[in-house]
Amino acid sequence: MTAAERDAPGTSAAAVEAVVAAGGSRLAELLARTEERLVALAAGHGPTLAQHATSTISAGGKRLRPLLVFLAAGEVAGPAAEARLVRAAVAVELIHSASLVHDDVLDAAAVRRGRPTVVAAAGRTAATATGDLLFSRAFAELAAGGELEDVRALSAAASALARGELIQRADAWDAAIPLERYLHRCELKTGSLFEAACRLGALASGSGVSPSGDRTRPPAVDVATALGLFGRRIGLAFQLLDDVLDVSGPAERTGKARGTDLLDGTVTLPLILARERDPQLARLDVRALRTAREAEEVCDRIAATGALDRAKQQALAVVEDARTGLPQLPPEQQQALELVAEGVVERYA
Amino acid sequence: MTAAERDAPGTSAAAVEAVVAAGGSRLAELLARTEERLVALAAGHGPTLAQHATSTISAGGKRLRPLLVFLAAGEVAGPAAEARLVRAAVAVELIHSASLVHDDVLDAAAVRRGRPTVVAAAGRTAATATGDLLFSRAFAELAAGGELEDVRALSAAASALARGELIQRADAWDAAIPLERYLHRCELKTGSLFEAACRLGALASGSGVSPSGDRTRPPAVDVATALGLFGRRIGLAFQLLDDVLDVSGPAERTGKARGTDLLDGTVTLPLILARERDPQLARLDVRALRTAREAEEVCDRIAATGALDRAKQQALAVVEDARTGLPQLPPEQQQALELVAEGVVERYA
Repeated sequence: MTAAERDAPGTSAAAVEAVVAAGGSRLAELLARTEERLVALAAGHGPTLAQHATSTISAGGKRLRPLLVFLAAGEVAGPAAEARLVRAAVAVELIHSASLVHDDVLDAAAVRRGRPTVVAAAGRTAATATGDLLFSRAFAELAAGGELEDVRALSAAASALARGELIQRADAWDAAIPLERYLHRCELKTGSLFEAACRLGALASGSGVSPSGDRTRPPAVDVATALGLFGRRIGLAFQLLDDVLDVSGPAERTGKARGTDLLDGTVTLPLILARERDPQLARLDVRALRTAREAEEVCDRIAATGALDRAKQQALAVVEDARTGLPQLPPEQQQALELVAEGVVERYA
Repeated sequence: MTAAERDAPGTSAAAVEAVVAAGGSRLAELLARTEERLVALAAGHGPTLAQHATSTISAGGKRLRPLLVFLAAGEVAGPAAEARLVRAAVAVELIHSASLVHDDVLDAAAVRRGRPTVVAAAGRTAATATGDLLFSRAFAELAAGGELEDVRALSAAASALARGELIQRADAWDAAIPLERYLHRCELKTGSLFEAACRLGALASGSGVSPSGDRTRPPAVDVATALGLFGRRIGLAFQLLDDVLDVSGPAERTGKARGTDLLDGTVTLPLILARERDPQLARLDVRALRTAREAEEVCDRIAATGALDRAKQQALAVVEDARTGLPQLPPEQQQALELVAEGVVERYA
């Protein structure tokens, strides 16, 4: 796994807080309803889940994906559309949480968000089942609403996420993986759920417009696609910058030693760019890296090629694409989405 | 895990074949379409899944759950209802396969259905992601259709399955678990997906009847509930008998040594019944069992109390409840469902 999924505390929390503050009471209320529903779900499916859920969904996190659902929706009309939005926000966060729980099983991780992980507290079997349960509750949440299109968007994202993991595993230890394949994996692993969040928000927003309704707005499905692409790009940039942070550190910020991805066999953008300029890195046998010290030495070598700056520039270009690709939106909504885009960049700064 | 999920080859294959033979060309065609779709799904989501899927969905199995979907549907009218049925059959089998793949990760199992497991072939990360992918494809399959009710039925079953696993883990090593709690766990773990299979079949069948349609038939939702209960009971009996087989053996039939569940810490019906009659078993420390030999000795001790026969009788009573609880159905459909019920019992004979 890479650091994006780890959601190291403090990375873009400040940016999220700024967006929420600017969004006013309505946004705050929607986020509060999402939180309430997550807590109710954690408590409502047996004492075993209730116990494990404290180390996952109840433990917080930045709720970046729910935030994107609400920001992509903009102003929605009426309680039905708001209920649909909250369901979507909850569902997206549940898929994210499920993937974190399964990642922690695979990494045998001890701590997340400052609390013991499910696998540390209850073992692999319980943690795998907890992930499966959170996963299925996400679909139950959307199915309880009335929108098949929402279920389609979520199942596409959940599939993409799993495919991204499969590709990452298939490409592990291969220092020669093509750039395109790496980018595709990042889109699947991280971009797809950000895309679904934006798409679900836009769909719920458009759901208030009847086919014979306001003709001055573009059709809801086009806005949903455009906002989905914004989410996908933001997610991609989020992952790229996270992969840069794994090499650049510092450990005090990221909460883990530099080069952790390399020790896991995960080859990311910095090495992919650096290998073009450093023949020794081009010949690197990732499997031969055994110690944190050796991994840090490779990180230093990558940094010496200037690859970290180039990787960061590539991520910034993706964020810029996301911004310029935004459809015409009300100014407040546009500003809020741009603030999130900035927040993704600020994680690195 | 318990043996039901392992689907040891040959257990009720003969009964399934008999039902298929009696069902004629239409049933055979629906099963063939299910198989085709499963193969297409395995091939259609990247080379990594295609490779792993050969050891899961493409490797066969009895397709008992798809069969129940079709039998619960009876005669359906038109291609739309048949397409819905095939989607339901595929979705139910995908959830089942996903749970098997995750079980194999947890058990570090080497072989299933005569082929290397995904975890044996590709490691824990790839196998966990493969399970997640199959899981999300199940929901995508139903969402591609037009029926939210189907998504609801499947997400309820998938949640129940995961909850059953959580309860099993929470109760592990506890020789004193109450009978009721054990039965509840079996319903969640195994009964719920059988229930969903029957319910989905019945819903698709009823979907051909418009609200102003044939009033001589009972409302589709009631038939769906009654057939769902049939499935739940059959699934429960299936699990109970599997748990008996784990204690009774013989190993040549079950494909594993007697007492495997006990060594995993899984306390099942035979011990629950036996502990009432044998004070030494009532005081059994399951954790103290270390070797296959010790587990077999406990199996012998359980058998000596007559608990295996009593457990079998309890399972047969559940099957009888399933039969008598069937709603009024066309004679051919009734016979086919009863044949499946018999098949579940014959697994033990």
